[in-house]
Amino acid sequence: MSTSWNIKPVSQKDSDAIQHKINMKTKPLGALGALEQTAHQLALIQQKNQIVIQNPTMLVFAGDHGVAEENVSLTSSDVTRQMVLNFLAGGAAINCFCRANDMALKVVDAGIKTPVEDERLILQRVGAGTRNLAKEPAMTEEEVLQSLHYGRQLASQLVSEGCNLLAFGEMGIGNTTPASCIMAALLNKSAADCVGRGTGISDAQLDRKINISATALNRIGNNKTPLNVLREVGGFEIAQITGAILGAAEAGISVLIDGFIITAAALLATRIAPASRDYMLFAHCSGEQGHQTMLEALDAAPLLQLGLRLGEGTGAAIALPLIRSAAEFYNNMASFESAGVTL
Amino acid sequence: MSTSWNIKPVSQKDSDAIQHKINMKTKPLGALGALEQTAHQLALIQQKNQIVIQNPTMLVFAGDHGVAEENVSLTSSDVTRQMVLNFLAGGAAINCFCRANDMALKVVDAGIKTPVEDERLILQRVGAGTRNLAKEPAMTEEEVLQSLHYGRQLASQLVSEGCNLLAFGEMGIGNTTPASCIMAALLNKSAADCVGRGTGISDAQLDRKINISATALNRIGNNKTPLNVLREVGGFEIAQITGAILGAAEAGISVLIDGFIITAAALLATRIAPASRDYMLFAHCSGEQGHQTMLEALDAAPLLQLGLRLGEGTGAAIALPLIRSAAEFYNNMASFESAGVTL
Repeated sequence: MSTSWNIKPVSQKDSDAIQHKINMKTKPLGALGALEQTAHQLALIQQKNQIVIQNPTMLVFAGDHGVAEENVSLTSSDVTRQMVLNFLAGGAAINCFCRANDMALKVVDAGIKTPVEDERLILQRVGAGTRNLAKEPAMTEEEVLQSLHYGRQLASQLVSEGCNLLAFGEMGIGNTTPASCIMAALLNKSAADCVGRGTGISDAQLDRKINISATALNRIGNNKTPLNVLREVGGFEIAQITGAILGAAEAGISVLIDGFIITAAALLATRIAPASRDYMLFAHCSGEQGHQTMLEALDAAPLLQLGLRLGEGTGAAIALPLIRSAAEFYNNMASFESAGVTL
Repeated sequence: MSTSWNIKPVSQKDSDAIQHKINMKTKPLGALGALEQTAHQLALIQQKNQIVIQNPTMLVFAGDHGVAEENVSLTSSDVTRQMVLNFLAGGAAINCFCRANDMALKVVDAGIKTPVEDERLILQRVGAGTRNLAKEPAMTEEEVLQSLHYGRQLASQLVSEGCNLLAFGEMGIGNTTPASCIMAALLNKSAADCVGRGTGISDAQLDRKINISATALNRIGNNKTPLNVLREVGGFEIAQITGAILGAAEAGISVLIDGFIITAAALLATRIAPASRDYMLFAHCSGEQGHQTMLEALDAAPLLQLGLRLGEGTGAAIALPLIRSAAEFYNNMASFESAGVTL
């Protein structure tokens, strides 16, 4: 399994021409706000005169976490599997939002505790949950590489089938702890600065979560390479998402980033291959402080602020129509000249 | 033409049951943020077990303004007509966003200077532009009543044809001046507190716009009834939108409010019939301070903040998918019980 990535930075050579095209549309300069930046980025990535959004796909990766045994979450690891069944039955929030917004949804078992037999589930199991990062590295180096490979391979396959926009969701009870640790390690922050309440834990649980994270961060010490961080405090789903982001960037397609966990994976991706940032669009900014700090580190301005705090990629699914609207105005809105409107 | 409105407040009796249904969905409490409030309001308005969004329609009202001759805008009144032609040709931003988001679009001539002959245009002309509010009342009382009637009638007709969500857009060079005056009169603010740069006028134009508005507000004095405010400083399109909002509320359907001008019409509607507020959803909060102040006065928290400043109803068209997503999760998301997910 190769750990070298072939990601080309997005060429900026057409940037002025793209901006000129946007400025000549029948509207005051800049009057479409964030949709103008979205259109500009998509046009740069696609390097075509028209922006095409084709087979946009939501990949939800599920994985379990050894650290869940430390009582740092509201619920137990059993819920990861229950929610995978809910995804497969079409009953979760992400199912609803993908249906409402015409987005394909695929669910990946990246390593939940107890397997689910269902042919619709994409099986990329690296193990039956990670080890407990409170006590030992969550993954072996081999597991990290296998996870990245699985993610990359799946992204590459979807692109070959015609998808040109990938979004990501996750399900894994306990996975805000690994994500917080990744954030702390990569941004040189303390555990207390990065650990939040997840879905709403108590003060005592929060203290415990901070202490556990601090212990794990001590173990990492100064060996903060993305691979070592993933090995010490990562998760199967987080590593597969990182691989899928990088795989999408290798294939030159846009990725839509949403939520605390996915943003941690995006941060890892930019540390592995900085050019991957060029392909990232950002969906939703949650109220969680840690999420905002990571978004700032990525110089990202998400489209939505709706107070979502569910994960599953829900923000990405509801941001998709905004991306379609940006493409539509870029492609088909009249110019002052074509419409005979006086400047 | 009756000026009495038969608008029933939305019954709150099912509020707890609706909230319970939302809380039992497979997600942490409140985790879908603003979409939960949206679903709650829609379910209250529709008083059914399932929320239905049927034939959502964008009505763009165009009208000209005598005050445009005062050089308070970037462009001349000619542009109103040019943009109506652009709407009819499908080339404006609102056309793009309605297409992208599966929303019907109808364009209304509420009184532009020079008529357009096009059978697709809904003709509800009250005049060839209003009078110059800098010098005299913009409309006669009869014109105000005729405008409200036209708006009400159109809303009622669309509801009878099966539409249950109406959104509004506007086009009228100069119409931020009337909207600012309406805001100032109804919220007891000074002209300087309400007048903004519209699409981007100079300092000298801004001063002129403030002075003109102050003069008109002096004329209004303490006679701040909605009808007198409309007569003194209103516009044909603004009054028709006010009538359409009230007509929609009479028919018991939701309205989606977006932009500075439409928000001023919504404020008028709530002063004519306070119960109309119950039917209003809010799409986008612009960066303009005056808009934010009006939204606060309406106790409104719009779904989007994208830095749009175009008008035309663009924010409403791109907010529609969020409303569909809220309906979809309310209708079809599994409960903990139905999905077998452990609380």
